[in-house]
Amino acid sequence: MLHLARDTEPGWAVRAAEHMDEILLDHAHLEKKAASNALQFIFRYPEHSVLHRPLSELAREELEHFEQVLGILESRGQTYRQLRPSPYLGKLRAAERKTEPVRLMDGLLTSGLIEARSCERMKLLSQALPTGPLQDLYLGLLSSEARHHRLYYDLAVRIFDEPSVRARLHELALHEAGIFGTLPEEPRLHND
Amino acid sequence: MLHLARDTEPGWAVRAAEHMDEILLDHAHLEKKAASNALQFIFRYPEHSVLHRPLSELAREELEHFEQVLGILESRGQTYRQLRPSPYLGKLRAAERKTEPVRLMDGLLTSGLIEARSCERMKLLSQALPTGPLQDLYLGLLSSEARHHRLYYDLAVRIFDEPSVRARLHELALHEAGIFGTLPEEPRLHND
Repeated sequence: MLHLARDTEPGWAVRAAEHMDEILLDHAHLEKKAASNALQFIFRYPEHSVLHRPLSELAREELEHFEQVLGILESRGQTYRQLRPSPYLGKLRAAERKTEPVRLMDGLLTSGLIEARSCERMKLLSQALPTGPLQDLYLGLLSSEARHHRLYYDLAVRIFDEPSVRARLHELALHEAGIFGTLPEEPRLHND
Repeated sequence: MLHLARDTEPGWAVRAAEHMDEILLDHAHLEKKAASNALQFIFRYPEHSVLHRPLSELAREELEHFEQVLGILESRGQTYRQLRPSPYLGKLRAAERKTEPVRLMDGLLTSGLIEARSCERMKLLSQALPTGPLQDLYLGLLSSEARHHRLYYDLAVRIFDEPSVRARLHELALHEAGIFGTLPEEPRLHND
């Protein structure tokens, strides 16, 4: 359902759960990044009005999650700071085609894959974490991530024909799966 | 209270009220621009955690307004399209100093001045418009704009000492006031 071509290996969540401050700092960064990415589509494609309202709503939700993660960091005595980001996003985006209109198709599909991978990882985290506020956070967020994944796919299908979208999604999902095994083991939501 | 050094000339709102489709298209653009501007501070200043939550909340509000204006455009049978933007923002931003830390001070203060000018213009529009959904829109929004203006000022004062902030705000407000008289008469929220 999430269109991912490869599952995360089972040990990831156990390791991540031991470094929750870093995971949360990375997570806060990714929520604001997701909001900014959604806004970029609205700015880059003024002619595609079908994108505007849904991606504005999505950006608002990501910012709510950003604020929610900041709140959890504060409750742990942490303030936001910049970590070295995972190379995952850059490696995924590198597969996007650079010319329109397929640049837009690829942008929507990689955005959807990021939401799918985040959803899968949040589910794994929620299973690895003990009962408590962190587990509640991830249980609460994973359904939004799944919904956002679906939204990016649906928007692609509203603009491009579905067989091309499906075929390209399959290619990009294989590319995404191939990134794992090449990433650092630093605790990040999208690292190995 | 809005720190503006010059009032908009009385004829502006009467002229603007005759071109509400263009004003609304420009307004939708400005709401998403305001959201993106707030997000930029969060990305550019990860070390200033005092900015993060309030500007994330502000960005969410601007996006809600963006969606609200899109709804009004739809109800008028319009879809979003890009207009030639007013030179106002560029001319205002040109006065910002380019080196930190005063780049941040100036960025916050010009952002606050834009909110103040928008608030003043929305108030004038609400007075020039007949009773109805458009008047309700602008009456509803102007208090948010005033609140955002105040927020940018308060954030500047939390990071820099208040006398310097006040002095610089006075200079920037004079610069802002000097922009009028140099702008096109195309119907835009910030034009002459």
